[in-house]
Amino acid sequence: MRQAGRYLPEYRKVREKVDFLTLTKTPELAAEVTLQPIRRFGMDAAILFSDIMTPLEGMGVELEFAPGPLIRNPVRSAAAVDALRACDPEETVPFVLETLGILRDELPASAPLIGFAGAPFTLFCYLVEGGGSKTFNTAKAFLFAEPAAAVRLLEKLAEMTVSYLTAQAAAGAQALMLFDSWAGLLGPDDYRRFAVPSVTRVLDELAPLELPLIYFPNQGATLLADVAGLGADVVGLDWRTPLSAARATLGPAKAIQGNLDPAALFAPPNELRSRIDRVLEEAGSEPGHIFNLGHGIDRATDPDQVARLVDHVHERTEAADAE
Amino acid sequence: MRQAGRYLPEYRKVREKVDFLTLTKTPELAAEVTLQPIRRFGMDAAILFSDIMTPLEGMGVELEFAPGPLIRNPVRSAAAVDALRACDPEETVPFVLETLGILRDELPASAPLIGFAGAPFTLFCYLVEGGGSKTFNTAKAFLFAEPAAAVRLLEKLAEMTVSYLTAQAAAGAQALMLFDSWAGLLGPDDYRRFAVPSVTRVLDELAPLELPLIYFPNQGATLLADVAGLGADVVGLDWRTPLSAARATLGPAKAIQGNLDPAALFAPPNELRSRIDRVLEEAGSEPGHIFNLGHGIDRATDPDQVARLVDHVHERTEAADAE
Repeated sequence: MRQAGRYLPEYRKVREKVDFLTLTKTPELAAEVTLQPIRRFGMDAAILFSDIMTPLEGMGVELEFAPGPLIRNPVRSAAAVDALRACDPEETVPFVLETLGILRDELPASAPLIGFAGAPFTLFCYLVEGGGSKTFNTAKAFLFAEPAAAVRLLEKLAEMTVSYLTAQAAAGAQALMLFDSWAGLLGPDDYRRFAVPSVTRVLDELAPLELPLIYFPNQGATLLADVAGLGADVVGLDWRTPLSAARATLGPAKAIQGNLDPAALFAPPNELRSRIDRVLEEAGSEPGHIFNLGHGIDRATDPDQVARLVDHVHERTEAADAE
Repeated sequence: MRQAGRYLPEYRKVREKVDFLTLTKTPELAAEVTLQPIRRFGMDAAILFSDIMTPLEGMGVELEFAPGPLIRNPVRSAAAVDALRACDPEETVPFVLETLGILRDELPASAPLIGFAGAPFTLFCYLVEGGGSKTFNTAKAFLFAEPAAAVRLLEKLAEMTVSYLTAQAAAGAQALMLFDSWAGLLGPDDYRRFAVPSVTRVLDELAPLELPLIYFPNQGATLLADVAGLGADVVGLDWRTPLSAARATLGPAKAIQGNLDPAALFAPPNELRSRIDRVLEEAGSEPGHIFNLGHGIDRATDPDQVARLVDHVHERTEAADAE
């Protein structure tokens, strides 16, 4: 999940001066807001500050944020799919690659840098719908009514995502995360038919980089049997699925990431700590668990609660390591 | 799910004259829009046209629709919980009971009438948040930070819901459905702690009515083991959970309802029919399956597609009955 954001006064201060899109395109500022939570809380890894929509502009998508993503030219026909350009990240998103370079120089060696991208189906949802939605029924209508054009769009997005994440790795990213924020809009049959082929392609083509690959199928409780077959090293989980149940479905080859309910940060400190303990118990330790929220942090969150979270996870895991 | 709605030209015609809240409070009109889809499509049962928020006004909640529910006095303190009034449906929602009476007179005997209410946790979400939300983090913050006041609110809502549905039964409802639209905001631990006690109370106190009780835990894929223990006769399912998997978890004592993806209504007719067939195959026949959408119908849906759906389900199930 994004570590930076409006819950931090130092982030809001940067945002007083620039809008969101400008922030993502200004390497010094994007690096600065990436580092803010690391400085304040001392997390074990840093995730690039950017947006999953960022690389789409290079394909010919007209994008704004108001404050959610809005696309002035949604893709709703085979012709619109064909009109999208392939793109070279060095030309279309040099600012992202430059941000990663700055971060590698400034981050302590102990904090690896995570690059990320949106998964093809999630980008598809925004591109066709033209913005956020509760149901994304316009996007799903296109998927169901024009499956051939939809699959071509998903393939184009997979291709773009491979080149985008490969460039992020070359620029210094040490792990790569793929956010499938809208995977949970699909039942298992449709997920298998429409989302799996494009995610598979991305993960398989990134495998030669030999970097940890993290895949987050948001609200994907009923998709995990299919996720188990994907080439991700780590599966991110929202808070709806208990980690022990996820482990049972994903099998011993996948590490897991997650999954504290972000609303737990509104609980009193003792209750917050007991909810963290519960996640750690559910996670177990084999084959690896990355503690994380199960979804994005709410802007109303008290930063001191995040500090408590990071400190408590460190205390608990250091105690476990010492045993 | 609501059968009436903006996808029907005859509904839009009624709505040209009255706003949504007025429509729910005018028995002749509420009955008329309830009957519209039955007349046009010949479904096997009718569901009352109303809104889950309707009975809250009687408790002292100031409600408007714009177009989603907006609450001018959200409940965010123990004092606000205590200030909510218990209410007598005969006094606070006479228009709902009158609507049911009209419907029983006008519906063919072959089409049973389903009454409904929101489940306590779902009403809680709206009441505390003050309206719709993607995350309902304000509501969850109250739940986690002030669990004693939150539980008292859930109990008050359960009590109201029992009297509301009991009155609906007395007025002519022949089955009762409880919509837990936001159940899926909770992980299993919190669902068990906060939602289950209030739903249990509602279902158990309605049991003596000896009417079929339907419970719909929306996005509740990870909650079904707990739902299996509730006193519902039928469990409604969204489209994310394959019905065969739901059967396996719910056990042989529960009938099931659902679960076609509403976006399937945007597929070409043959694809729509094959998706209906898939739901029927997944459902099997024992111990009972009520064909339904897995969520609300999109306003952009072509009514002819709904006609195709109803006709195809009738053909398939009549063929199965004849075997």
